[in-house]
Amino acid sequence: MFNQFEASTPLDKASFEARALTLRQQLLQSQFTVEDTRDPVIIVVAGLDGAGKGVLVHRLNEWMDPRGIETNTFWEHSDEEESRPYFWRYWNKLPARGHIGIFLGSWYTHPTQALVEGKIGTAEFKQACERISIFERQLADDGAIIIKLWLHVSEETQRRQLEEKAPRRQQNPRVTDHPYELTGKYQRALDVSEQLIRNTQTLQNPWHIIDAEDRHYREIKAGEIILDSITRRLEQPEVPPQPPALPPPGDFLAEVNLEKALSKRDYKRKLRKYQAKLQDLAWEAYRQKRSLVAVFEGWDGAGKGSAIRRVTGAIDPRLYKLVPIAAPSDEELSHHYLWRFWRQLQRDGRSTLFDRSWYGRVMVERVEGLAAQHEWQRAYAEINEMEGELAAHGCVLAKFFIHIDQDEQLARFQAREREPHKQHKITAEDWRNREKWPQYERAVNQMVEHTSTRHAPWTLVAGNDKYYARVKIIKTLCKALERALY
Amino acid sequence: MFNQFEASTPLDKASFEARALTLRQQLLQSQFTVEDTRDPVIIVVAGLDGAGKGVLVHRLNEWMDPRGIETNTFWEHSDEEESRPYFWRYWNKLPARGHIGIFLGSWYTHPTQALVEGKIGTAEFKQACERISIFERQLADDGAIIIKLWLHVSEETQRRQLEEKAPRRQQNPRVTDHPYELTGKYQRALDVSEQLIRNTQTLQNPWHIIDAEDRHYREIKAGEIILDSITRRLEQPEVPPQPPALPPPGDFLAEVNLEKALSKRDYKRKLRKYQAKLQDLAWEAYRQKRSLVAVFEGWDGAGKGSAIRRVTGAIDPRLYKLVPIAAPSDEELSHHYLWRFWRQLQRDGRSTLFDRSWYGRVMVERVEGLAAQHEWQRAYAEINEMEGELAAHGCVLAKFFIHIDQDEQLARFQAREREPHKQHKITAEDWRNREKWPQYERAVNQMVEHTSTRHAPWTLVAGNDKYYARVKIIKTLCKALERALY
Repeated sequence: MFNQFEASTPLDKASFEARALTLRQQLLQSQFTVEDTRDPVIIVVAGLDGAGKGVLVHRLNEWMDPRGIETNTFWEHSDEEESRPYFWRYWNKLPARGHIGIFLGSWYTHPTQALVEGKIGTAEFKQACERISIFERQLADDGAIIIKLWLHVSEETQRRQLEEKAPRRQQNPRVTDHPYELTGKYQRALDVSEQLIRNTQTLQNPWHIIDAEDRHYREIKAGEIILDSITRRLEQPEVPPQPPALPPPGDFLAEVNLEKALSKRDYKRKLRKYQAKLQDLAWEAYRQKRSLVAVFEGWDGAGKGSAIRRVTGAIDPRLYKLVPIAAPSDEELSHHYLWRFWRQLQRDGRSTLFDRSWYGRVMVERVEGLAAQHEWQRAYAEINEMEGELAAHGCVLAKFFIHIDQDEQLARFQAREREPHKQHKITAEDWRNREKWPQYERAVNQMVEHTSTRHAPWTLVAGNDKYYARVKIIKTLCKALERALY
Repeated sequence: MFNQFEASTPLDKASFEARALTLRQQLLQSQFTVEDTRDPVIIVVAGLDGAGKGVLVHRLNEWMDPRGIETNTFWEHSDEEESRPYFWRYWNKLPARGHIGIFLGSWYTHPTQALVEGKIGTAEFKQACERISIFERQLADDGAIIIKLWLHVSEETQRRQLEEKAPRRQQNPRVTDHPYELTGKYQRALDVSEQLIRNTQTLQNPWHIIDAEDRHYREIKAGEIILDSITRRLEQPEVPPQPPALPPPGDFLAEVNLEKALSKRDYKRKLRKYQAKLQDLAWEAYRQKRSLVAVFEGWDGAGKGSAIRRVTGAIDPRLYKLVPIAAPSDEELSHHYLWRFWRQLQRDGRSTLFDRSWYGRVMVERVEGLAAQHEWQRAYAEINEMEGELAAHGCVLAKFFIHIDQDEQLARFQAREREPHKQHKITAEDWRNREKWPQYERAVNQMVEHTSTRHAPWTLVAGNDKYYARVKIIKTLCKALERALY
């Protein structure tokens, strides 16, 4: 696979500088054009060490406008990173729309090294590649221009390169970091690289293999590939697919028995019981370094807030983070819609409680037309994939939709308007949403149909009786934690 | 000091609920009023364990609107936190304007515990308090409403509280975390607390000591203090002080010898020499876990960008972060102007390079009238204090202002307009700024006069000759690192 790239074609200084001058202007132009779009550019610079990745990155920074470009390097992991789902660290470093992010060391580094060093097997490696392809697909679907460069060098060149570095060896851990490079693991590393490329080579996000023997040649080549990829994308903006309308969903809400209720006495008894249980389980989860990720959705006035307070009331404040989801900030708007949720994930052993969540995409954003049809339909898969990542990392997921009927909602809205310290909870928007009850009903049912998975099931909570709902929620959380911890 | 607070005054359930109902409405009201201001609210909940801090925090969250309130807890430190200046972790958690941040465990926790456990002496403790007062003063000057609550309990009550927790002991590390609480160090902890309060008791940010013996009483009391503090501030918005005009500064720019120059041959030789040196020093700094924080300022067209590229060209991409400072995002605007710089600080052993910096406050923001006179004048001290914090942590600071004369600038502007791949660097704004040369000159001289400190000196670089300037900068960086590392 790589052999054909070893026909080294050196480029003399003069012709390099001539080509560099034009290329540079074109790259700048395309960078400025990108800045006016909603497309972030993600450049992955990969390849064996000694292939000159670092030098290339320096050159790209020199050629383009540093103000719109950010280089991210991944080598040593911090415990903040280690204690969160794998892709968290990368989501956090994604470039904003119109910006360019260069990744020197990326989501590819870890699995590659692990396989070379025999820490994982081929099957696990294939899975990792699968998850990487999904990650990249999600970003590209959202408009990201992903450019993956693989710098290839022959064994001799690598050895020469690394030996040149020898004098700095004690300064530069890199050279000793990955022993295989110096101890003849070249062939092994090459085989792994080949598998990596095959497994993550997609039409949407292809690899570009560059003959890196000659510095001038590889820099021009890389620049041209970047220029070409950006230009082609900007010339032919992708036409949004027109997905087929979804079949009408099952009526899950109708199946919720809203008659369920608890007497105040039973409520107090059970609440105390399960809150105590939840408190212990939260500490046990902390000890076992397992994270709870809970999502709270429901009709306006369903009692989300008061239910959440009964949950937080049971957990030590140091063990949870409550994340109320409101209108996104401009930093959030300039990223993939899942970015703002990824960035909120707490460390292993802590709980993250979302008061409203990424499901806004397929509810309010869908109903209010804030997301196009192909966007919110795509979101079902994207959400399942994200929750899959969390589950794979060991997070315990629980998702609640608190259901009430329209009469109950009306009664509560009116009650709120009477109670001074609740008036703030009822707005004109609530009344507007109320008029869209049928559309929301359909959206909720479709959401439940498409995103209720084994590792992240929905719990539809009968909410006409607040007592029942609160106990139901805390009890469900306890069950989920028990299942995971014991 | 605390005795008078032990006259426990229990509050029966009925009267508690009556007062809570009104208080709650008033708190909500004030919360909504705050949301329309530019003032963040910072509530510090402190006191010995067993005083019911956690329970109080739950209550406050219950009383107020969770959407505008965020609880931050500090107990276990991550290595990301440990490897940055002390206040970094707190700056990162500061509430945005109009929001409320509750701190359970705060900048007070660490020094208090350290002194109780005898890890530091009184002198060091006093210093810590001094730095805390500065931190709080900076936030309050910027509009923050800082409310510091100290919950006091008697030794008996504490013991009872902690023993009640005993059954959960193995769930709850807290109880065993700080041995002194259980092993009769109460008096010691109390003495330390008293010192802490005395040392950080300021008119601007006073402590409120609350008798926490009775749960109902302390919750009402805390609520009333918060309400009162917010109300008083909102009723009497502070009148901006009218600081006296500063005396004309020395003319430091005039002293720069712009004749200095290097032949291309000397340039290439020296550049190679010092870049190699800088590369080694950067790795040595990494090994010694020392951070370089470098600031690059200068006239438009002075050659900042190309100089920075020579610096980054010498450092392994994994060891530095280049931070170009552009217009702030709305998240940044909703915080103290130093927040966006604090959040960028890299970990120990890495370099953070700022292309433009916090000095914009006393240059462009001053000249363009984006900051009021009392704001930019205050900034000199604030900046020295921030840089002092970095230096205290072990950061190596270097600040460059690249100076050119007006003719040279004109020549470069015109050259840029001719060169296609440089046109983007010259904008109408550059021409406008050029007309304000005298105002900027004055601002620069004043900046140098007030912010050139022993630990963070300014280097005014003669920039008419780019070769000379680049070498001068890299050489200066090498010197600074050598001084720090050897």
